[in-house]
Amino acid sequence: MSIQPGPIRLSVTDLHESVDDPALTSMTLLNELAGRYPEAVSFSAGRPFEGFYDVEDLSRHLRTFRSHLEDEKGLSAEQVRRTFFQYGRTKGFIHELIARQLEIDEGFTVDPESIVVTTGCQEAMVLLLRALVRDTRDVILAATPNYVGFIGAARVAGAPLRCVREHEGGIDLEDLERQIGAARREGLRPRACYVVPDFANPSGASMSLADRIALLELARREQILVIEDNPYTLFRSGGSPLPMLKALDEQHQVIHLGSFAKSAFAGARVGYVIADQPVTPAGASCADPVLLADHLAKLKSMVTLNTSTVAQAVIGGYLIENGCSLKRATAREAEVYRRNLAAMLDGLRSVFAPVPGLPQDVSWNTPQGGMFVVVTLPFPADDDMLEYSASRFGVLWTPMHHFYGGTAGFHQARLSFSVLTPEQIALGVERLGELVQDQRVKQLVEVAHA
Amino acid sequence: MSIQPGPIRLSVTDLHESVDDPALTSMTLLNELAGRYPEAVSFSAGRPFEGFYDVEDLSRHLRTFRSHLEDEKGLSAEQVRRTFFQYGRTKGFIHELIARQLEIDEGFTVDPESIVVTTGCQEAMVLLLRALVRDTRDVILAATPNYVGFIGAARVAGAPLRCVREHEGGIDLEDLERQIGAARREGLRPRACYVVPDFANPSGASMSLADRIALLELARREQILVIEDNPYTLFRSGGSPLPMLKALDEQHQVIHLGSFAKSAFAGARVGYVIADQPVTPAGASCADPVLLADHLAKLKSMVTLNTSTVAQAVIGGYLIENGCSLKRATAREAEVYRRNLAAMLDGLRSVFAPVPGLPQDVSWNTPQGGMFVVVTLPFPADDDMLEYSASRFGVLWTPMHHFYGGTAGFHQARLSFSVLTPEQIALGVERLGELVQDQRVKQLVEVAHA
Repeated sequence: MSIQPGPIRLSVTDLHESVDDPALTSMTLLNELAGRYPEAVSFSAGRPFEGFYDVEDLSRHLRTFRSHLEDEKGLSAEQVRRTFFQYGRTKGFIHELIARQLEIDEGFTVDPESIVVTTGCQEAMVLLLRALVRDTRDVILAATPNYVGFIGAARVAGAPLRCVREHEGGIDLEDLERQIGAARREGLRPRACYVVPDFANPSGASMSLADRIALLELARREQILVIEDNPYTLFRSGGSPLPMLKALDEQHQVIHLGSFAKSAFAGARVGYVIADQPVTPAGASCADPVLLADHLAKLKSMVTLNTSTVAQAVIGGYLIENGCSLKRATAREAEVYRRNLAAMLDGLRSVFAPVPGLPQDVSWNTPQGGMFVVVTLPFPADDDMLEYSASRFGVLWTPMHHFYGGTAGFHQARLSFSVLTPEQIALGVERLGELVQDQRVKQLVEVAHA
Repeated sequence: MSIQPGPIRLSVTDLHESVDDPALTSMTLLNELAGRYPEAVSFSAGRPFEGFYDVEDLSRHLRTFRSHLEDEKGLSAEQVRRTFFQYGRTKGFIHELIARQLEIDEGFTVDPESIVVTTGCQEAMVLLLRALVRDTRDVILAATPNYVGFIGAARVAGAPLRCVREHEGGIDLEDLERQIGAARREGLRPRACYVVPDFANPSGASMSLADRIALLELARREQILVIEDNPYTLFRSGGSPLPMLKALDEQHQVIHLGSFAKSAFAGARVGYVIADQPVTPAGASCADPVLLADHLAKLKSMVTLNTSTVAQAVIGGYLIENGCSLKRATAREAEVYRRNLAAMLDGLRSVFAPVPGLPQDVSWNTPQGGMFVVVTLPFPADDDMLEYSASRFGVLWTPMHHFYGGTAGFHQARLSFSVLTPEQIALGVERLGELVQDQRVKQLVEVAHA
């Protein structure tokens, strides 16, 4: 009698390695920690402010978009129904509204045909990275610390990342040039460089106008593409607005990623990519080049087909109701973030004020906008310290080393202030001060015992 | 003076090979053909019937789902707002409603925690295939002809497919065993087999109960997973309902893919995967196994994050309004498809009635449900013939060889009848008859000239 085999045994080592990626696993851990300490002030939640959301708005946005299709676009009842319910154009149907928004808010024009509406900016990253990595020689450069969503997209798309240093003024162009050269000497093919020019997540860094121009020059010289992700540009607190890289792009060097997560709402999962690069067909074909956008759309048809029609319609209605200006649409949120950034910087200055005779062992950057400040601490800011901070002092933050792939940032924490009140921010910074005081005392005791 | 480099040159040969996949490129071609001959009767459109859609339903579904959150789930106003607007649970928030639907309609129970709500069934396929292919030894088996979306998902996920023969009764189990053995002898690791048990797209084939049981036995013996995709089971025209593979699955062998594209609406892009397989952690860890669903959710967090909240809410409301029964929700559509299948088979029997003394050179299958019939023609049914058929006779169909990866089906056409009226179907079959007559005459002339 033969032995009946039991149920199939699956081990995580049988699955694609991206399911066990340390960066992503850490993020799961951080979320779990937030759940375990609900009373803690959380500087770790990077999600947008939710005080102005109203569920009733969703139906109004749908009605607005329906009217737009009927009145402005002149669609028949059958065409309207089809737009809302059927499989649709893979590149999406709110591309013209997006082009109008960029013209109104950012002052540059794009061909709507070069826009692919995606299931959040996350899908845009996956499609783009999948497209750009043909074989094992292809590498993508990225200013580091990295947005964790970009790291995830690279893992799942199988795109190797090569880190480029970042300073207060964004990507370090000398290091970029060095990394491109080093990659080429190793026989690799650097394809593109990912940057967040304004108030980057997690660092809060922003690029100067001169550096934006220099980056495009460098990319042209080196024949690499620039991937621009710029969701925080709407939330400037100080300084003059600077042009997006795409606005400076005269030679189709820049692939621009767009998101409605920080303006309309994150749950919609609507984003886009502008990919106006001409791509020549294979072989000696005399066929015309097609837009990179159309190749990305082919990949999209294999990943999610069209972006959810109802989600697109809601975002379309939101844009129309705000005259296609996200600056106008997000004026209230921008005010909240400005107020909170000021509260955060005030709190840090007050709690960590210099004490004559003692070394200034806590420092922080002063971003001119966005949702994040980075603080440098006189002790390792790792997951264990975070748990200690949450359980003993009731304050959560995000260890920066996760955004460096565990290679740097060991003494740094990202402080996010988007969903808090100024009072919560003040309380959280006070608690952070208590943690620092606790660690200073411990260090003194250790030194005394040594 | 140095020469200024020009704009970056991109060739399709610099991009990932999936952007140039022949199966997907053909589908683009077919869509384009449908656009060029709008007056033709199209048996090529596989999209669902759209006669019962009403844009007003969307807002009602949203209201229904909101009431469900408030009244049945007891969520606070803030929690409701967060559910609709914020980043949410990666596995989705309509998993309990989906579990209830499967219990009501299909009579089996699943742990809602084993369900991942995805951006259409397409994303579920991509996540699953990405997870199951660890290295170059892993292969996925699939009953062929294949659903084109599955081919696409495999291409973009980098999962090698190995074809298994299919007959009128679905997957050929002897060939499956043979293919598993052959793959193993080549040093490969067959991981799973993909099947559509009821009224498959494109073949219309259905598996018997005996074969369903035998497939699970074979899979257990061979220690492979079964991937069940079963969107057409709702649309049975004759015969007795058969249990889904997942309903017969006692040992977590079956990964079930679900879709709302053929029930609620395709544009929503809401589907799901049930993956209740325990996965043991790496190393000698004594940690508990986690569900495969949770690993798929990690991949999902890198591809699209959560499925669109507004799309999930619309589908949630649709389910609630129909007492969580898709059979009840789709009763009208099912009636249309039954009527149309009958019209299609009547038309074929009448137009291609046997003529005494002449060979019966046109044949077709008689599916007991679904949206597709396959006809075998006495001439090559390729893209050129399709264009000829559209331009001369005003009838479009889909060459079956696309679903075989160009290895078989050269004389077959898929006839889809989901969006047509019985009158259009009758007219289309008549025109198909004229094409066949035209080709018969051409062949006679050729023989006479030879």
